[in-house]
Amino acid sequence: MSPHIARRMEAFSPFYVMELLQRAKQLEAQGKDIIHMEIGEPDYPTPINVLNAGLKHIQTGQIKYTAAAGLPELRKKISSYYQLNYAVDVSPERIFVTPGASGAFLLALGVSLNPGENIIMADPCYPCNSNFVQFFEGKTQFVNVDASTGYQLTANLIEQNWSASSRGVLIASPSNPTGTLISELQLKRSIELVNSLDGCFFSDEIYHGLVYDKKACSALEFSDDVFVINSFSKYFAMTGWRVGWLIVPEHFIDAVERLAQNIFISTSTHSQYAALAAFSKQNLAELNLRTQKFANRRDFLYDNLLRLGFDIAIKPEGAFYIYANCSAFTNDSFQFAKDLLEQEGVAVTPGKDFGKNEANCHIRFAYTASIAKMAAAIERLEKFLCR
Amino acid sequence: MSPHIARRMEAFSPFYVMELLQRAKQLEAQGKDIIHMEIGEPDYPTPINVLNAGLKHIQTGQIKYTAAAGLPELRKKISSYYQLNYAVDVSPERIFVTPGASGAFLLALGVSLNPGENIIMADPCYPCNSNFVQFFEGKTQFVNVDASTGYQLTANLIEQNWSASSRGVLIASPSNPTGTLISELQLKRSIELVNSLDGCFFSDEIYHGLVYDKKACSALEFSDDVFVINSFSKYFAMTGWRVGWLIVPEHFIDAVERLAQNIFISTSTHSQYAALAAFSKQNLAELNLRTQKFANRRDFLYDNLLRLGFDIAIKPEGAFYIYANCSAFTNDSFQFAKDLLEQEGVAVTPGKDFGKNEANCHIRFAYTASIAKMAAAIERLEKFLCR
Repeated sequence: MSPHIARRMEAFSPFYVMELLQRAKQLEAQGKDIIHMEIGEPDYPTPINVLNAGLKHIQTGQIKYTAAAGLPELRKKISSYYQLNYAVDVSPERIFVTPGASGAFLLALGVSLNPGENIIMADPCYPCNSNFVQFFEGKTQFVNVDASTGYQLTANLIEQNWSASSRGVLIASPSNPTGTLISELQLKRSIELVNSLDGCFFSDEIYHGLVYDKKACSALEFSDDVFVINSFSKYFAMTGWRVGWLIVPEHFIDAVERLAQNIFISTSTHSQYAALAAFSKQNLAELNLRTQKFANRRDFLYDNLLRLGFDIAIKPEGAFYIYANCSAFTNDSFQFAKDLLEQEGVAVTPGKDFGKNEANCHIRFAYTASIAKMAAAIERLEKFLCR
Repeated sequence: MSPHIARRMEAFSPFYVMELLQRAKQLEAQGKDIIHMEIGEPDYPTPINVLNAGLKHIQTGQIKYTAAAGLPELRKKISSYYQLNYAVDVSPERIFVTPGASGAFLLALGVSLNPGENIIMADPCYPCNSNFVQFFEGKTQFVNVDASTGYQLTANLIEQNWSASSRGVLIASPSNPTGTLISELQLKRSIELVNSLDGCFFSDEIYHGLVYDKKACSALEFSDDVFVINSFSKYFAMTGWRVGWLIVPEHFIDAVERLAQNIFISTSTHSQYAALAAFSKQNLAELNLRTQKFANRRDFLYDNLLRLGFDIAIKPEGAFYIYANCSAFTNDSFQFAKDLLEQEGVAVTPGKDFGKNEANCHIRFAYTASIAKMAAAIERLEKFLCR
């Protein structure tokens, strides 16, 4: 590495899936049909009313900066959504509209994490989350999790791994890549524990809404002293709009405001106006129909992967991923993914993108494709496994 | 400060103008007419062709993530713009589309600055620039500048202030708040010096295009080994779209790509599609008419401020600001700004938002208002000064 490059970049883990994506594009350019099951992005378009709200604002021509914390009316709508959905009071002053969940992570860790301190996370987990910690010269204290705890941290695991340099804990529920939820009891106990340790609790709730058999709890149901990261990208199907939000404990408001002013100025204005339409009854009803379709896709994919011999210790309860153990076929899931792409044109994400914990015997399948497409993928996969 | 708040936030300078903005809003809510000359945002709407390009993309409903580095066709267009405008070859691979210039700063400093290292900047300068350094736990080495160097750093000043902990130099030309340009010779010498010192050279060129009597040079005319920060916000009048770009030295491409993937995922998709239309001949012709209007506004404001007794050591050559010395009237320009707002409803930015160098005897006036509005402001200002 060039001596000019900042040290924080050295431990920035790459996305291995990018290599597969590039190869997939090459193959597509050669005319080969690729079925994409590696993509963490809903295949549905932006709902029409949201689209129209964005269009309407752009037509004014006045696409100016907003307040750094976001449009006041959007912060109020998000606040009402917490009342409606989780029966919790969240003052709009604690809500910051951000450029996606990415922006929310920048603010949350930017105001709370010092270099050298650590944040406890589950392994497997979404790689960006620990790279944000690395960005601030912190360390991630990975804790291996498995099916016995629903691939989630527990209060006990947190307690065992807490050290003098721990600053906080990050929970993601539903989890990416496993799609599993933390239990209400463990969420509550974990928050209580972290609060008692004077640490920061970060709850990544970006897949809320995409939960199939029960309802996910928000960390805000148990404490006001938590950071909650959420996004319009997944459930609301607004990825490219780049708009999310962060909820912060009261005493962080001033620092978060100053940081947002400086590092963002503001979030895309028309995206915020579009998001204003996302909470209408009509839109939520449409989104819930989509959630039902995602549930059907999950069932389809789950049943078929089991049939083919993958091991899935827990049926995922949310998000749009299945983290399947492929040790019946390989002990190098990255090579497996590369071969699958090359030979059958099916793109999936290798486990090593999500950590080190049994990563080489796992593959993440995203069900962000129709059942028809997934049926074709399963057929190809079956052919691949029979070679 | 709460012990939970990260240390980097302690030295984050606030924007004093925010206090004035809030008061201005209160006064407006009470029905008082406020003339805004504090705003660093063009009053012109987004040009119609750009608007339509954004609308057209949204109408597809497919507002999905783009590549982290931006739409390939937009990177190509930006590359062509450098060929057209500065006669320099910049490979599209070196160009990263970002969420505004803010995103460009996050990437540029994120890949190059280690905690404890310093970046040399002029005082006065735009406060966010040094807050970005603070964000990465670096230090800003401020160098007082005055009219004798056009309020810009020189190679000599850089050499005198370079130390073992210096990582690089940031130049902003045209400068915010002074609107002055660095000379071609000093830009060239400064880059050569910084390169010879094995440092990083950051060139903030966000006000390029808004330059009135000559043409601003890009740092890229003198070296490929520079970071150039630019934006669609000012000259292109696209503030709320939040789209800018960063050009990086070849050997930083990989690190910048990894960082962008992790901290942004991507920049707003429809904003990027809108920006694609920004480089059309027709649009550039329209923007250049606006630039002429800004030049007329500058002349109007400059003449009138001098007439009222403000001292302006150099007639600004670009951006849309005049940094006026008000020591004939006050040695507390923040109080002066507060009184001016309270008594006459004219909002301006106090010098202390731009550093410590004679800050208390300076006021920044933005000519982001029509000449008619500025004429009314001058009338009010005259009344205020005669009290």
